[in-house]
Amino acid sequence: IGINSGSIDKKILKKNNGNIVNSMVESALENVRLLESLKFNNFKISAKASSVLDTINVYELVSNKVDYPLHLGVTEAGPRFRGSIKSSVGIGILLSKGIGDTIRVSLTGKSIDEVKAAYIILNSLGLRRVGVDIISCPTCGRTTDDLKQIVDEIEKLTADIKKNLKLAVMGCIVNGPGEAKDADLGIAFGKEKAAVFLKGRVIKRVDKNIASKELKKELERLV
Amino acid sequence: IGINSGSIDKKILKKNNGNIVNSMVESALENVRLLESLKFNNFKISAKASSVLDTINVYELVSNKVDYPLHLGVTEAGPRFRGSIKSSVGIGILLSKGIGDTIRVSLTGKSIDEVKAAYIILNSLGLRRVGVDIISCPTCGRTTDDLKQIVDEIEKLTADIKKNLKLAVMGCIVNGPGEAKDADLGIAFGKEKAAVFLKGRVIKRVDKNIASKELKKELERLV
Repeated sequence: IGINSGSIDKKILKKNNGNIVNSMVESALENVRLLESLKFNNFKISAKASSVLDTINVYELVSNKVDYPLHLGVTEAGPRFRGSIKSSVGIGILLSKGIGDTIRVSLTGKSIDEVKAAYIILNSLGLRRVGVDIISCPTCGRTTDDLKQIVDEIEKLTADIKKNLKLAVMGCIVNGPGEAKDADLGIAFGKEKAAVFLKGRVIKRVDKNIASKELKKELERLV
Repeated sequence: IGINSGSIDKKILKKNNGNIVNSMVESALENVRLLESLKFNNFKISAKASSVLDTINVYELVSNKVDYPLHLGVTEAGPRFRGSIKSSVGIGILLSKGIGDTIRVSLTGKSIDEVKAAYIILNSLGLRRVGVDIISCPTCGRTTDDLKQIVDEIEKLTADIKKNLKLAVMGCIVNGPGEAKDADLGIAFGKEKAAVFLKGRVIKRVDKNIASKELKKELERLV
């Protein structure tokens, strides 16, 4: 059953005084009753709104009424950056409440980014751990200038790895070693040298300019 | 008070058998007590973890113990796409529970993207509505090929608008008019023509090739 906030039955919308959430819930439940009356129960329900708040409200209400599996998504969420943020907020909140069985991130852009975003959401919540998660520093007075470039490089390098690994690329010695220790593989930059960590242990200290090469070498051993 | 999962006091970590969440909470509360003993109460608490789940758990526990304002964030969340998704899941879930007073999105990248992501999170949850929200179709058999290009163009054009507006750029006539109707300004592409909607009313039908120009013209009138 697929309900979308952009195409609600006008009669139902009118009956609910234009309330989108109530109209979507009523429409979903009406379709449930129809299928049940035909003795067909092998379905799931999608009731996506383009508003994140409406999406959350609709799924909460539907999940309170019926036990069928729910397919989650914020519909027409927008382009890559904006759309994945809106989807992460909406889908993340619902999944954290135990609502939802399958998900789709809808982006105006490449389908591969929809899948990537979906996996990052699931990984964040510990629901499905696939691929490489990257922990890396934001801009900060202590961070080395080229950190973004190194992280971009590593993200490309690890994009197709299916094994679940946690990689830390840290720009300083304050939080760096701590986060790197928690990771399967990490690198923390100091003033001149960089320390490479493997499962919490410093395995070598190298010159900064060869640090990303060393990280790649260790990564290849892990996967 | 700033606690970070990467730099927890080793004594506290040992006392908590290496449990990061409990150590962060204990560390935050210890600092609260210290400041309170000095009769200083004008502070807020930040207790960021690089794990989204740890972040959520730490802030929930801290918010159950004290009433001081909380500054939310997933620390070292990673590069732009991954980092904003992880931040949106973590910050979104906490804000939806009424936890948190200020937020920061930490990305390995440009600071301006951190601010943009933060505003999209707040806007998604209806907590602060600033700037233009864009509703737009994902790839789909019905969507016109150049929708991504048009949406990218419109996103750039609207990046600096502070006024809160909802724009819909829809690729077909199934969900298109519905979503566009809900927006302040919208465009829905048909087979040959595109309909421009202003606050729920079709104000004109134009040739598809001049549609984005027409949308821009209407947008300029609105801001």
